[in-house]
Amino acid sequence: MNIAIPIFDRFTALDAVGPYEVLSRLPGATVRFVAAQAGPVRTETRMLTLLADTTFEQLTDPEVLVVPGGFGTRPLMDDERILGWLRRVHERSQWTTSVCTGSLLLAAAGILDGLHATTHWAELDTLAQYGAHPVSERVVEQGKVITAAGVSAGIDMALTLAARIAGEQVAQAIQLGIEYDPQPPFDCGSPAKAPQEIVELVRAVSARAG
Amino acid sequence: MNIAIPIFDRFTALDAVGPYEVLSRLPGATVRFVAAQAGPVRTETRMLTLLADTTFEQLTDPEVLVVPGGFGTRPLMDDERILGWLRRVHERSQWTTSVCTGSLLLAAAGILDGLHATTHWAELDTLAQYGAHPVSERVVEQGKVITAAGVSAGIDMALTLAARIAGEQVAQAIQLGIEYDPQPPFDCGSPAKAPQEIVELVRAVSARAG
Repeated sequence: MNIAIPIFDRFTALDAVGPYEVLSRLPGATVRFVAAQAGPVRTETRMLTLLADTTFEQLTDPEVLVVPGGFGTRPLMDDERILGWLRRVHERSQWTTSVCTGSLLLAAAGILDGLHATTHWAELDTLAQYGAHPVSERVVEQGKVITAAGVSAGIDMALTLAARIAGEQVAQAIQLGIEYDPQPPFDCGSPAKAPQEIVELVRAVSARAG
Repeated sequence: MNIAIPIFDRFTALDAVGPYEVLSRLPGATVRFVAAQAGPVRTETRMLTLLADTTFEQLTDPEVLVVPGGFGTRPLMDDERILGWLRRVHERSQWTTSVCTGSLLLAAAGILDGLHATTHWAELDTLAQYGAHPVSERVVEQGKVITAAGVSAGIDMALTLAARIAGEQVAQAIQLGIEYDPQPPFDCGSPAKAPQEIVELVRAVSARAG
């Protein structure tokens, strides 16, 4: 099973690497990182560089698509090179998925028209502007389209997807393999749970960073 | 604050990228990926390549050390180039940390002698062989030394460390920023919770992969 993760300047590393770590462990899976050009792609902090193995033109028919987010999605919202590629891949994919603001790219490509979908909590309104029905859930399944909430939600999404692809036992083995028994030190990982002043702080940083 | 993440052939991507995603968001933090040689370093699946920015010789005094694991730790257990570097960095570090089998490298360097520490659940016995007292906990703090359990535990460890470094409010803002409100699809992320046949399956795969 061929899995493609498109990456781009200023993507969020964990959006891509969380699902990679899960899906690369599926029996027979090959994960490839794809970009406009093969070679180094820098994350949004500029502190980490991943290599893209191949280009959009070279990788045309992955069965699984995982689109990460990051501030780098913003200049791509009208970039036909990536949006056209997403549309073409989605036509034939078995699964089309996103993490965080990766769903904004799917929406801009028209893939989420009329569908329920999610994204980073601070960007749910933006998702609505692009034709999706935003939902405050961690993982949203709509047929073959699965969207995940912000950054770390890609791990939950990928385990859900692993179960759909290979069955619950395989997904459970992967979850145990990555020892995913989360024990966050605080109970503040969603805006409904976090203190209001922290929600406003993060919202302000998020808006500035664009 | 300078944070160093040493990487090596066949490291586990999420061990490194989980903490990177958290710690890179600390105000004033710089995370650098360091290796024996600068340039591409491939993960244990061979499906992902990260770039090391700098070499062990060039980066001598980070305040924070985060050592990831992976099957690639095994050939390094007597590699003085990395073990000597770990020792020298640890002498002056403010925090010395590891994720998954990264603790085996700390132990091989003598840094965990007589300390409580953790690692991937399938490698707790190995950790004992190198002089540490293994503990089945997700995050183990011993003064400035913090070790985390397998792969995904690095996120919990890094949030704990973020709170120590910058206070709970900053750590909570980071947790909300990465929307870390985990909802794993299964409750099987530790050997105490997973069905026995899945524990045996993962243990067998883990032993073979070395």
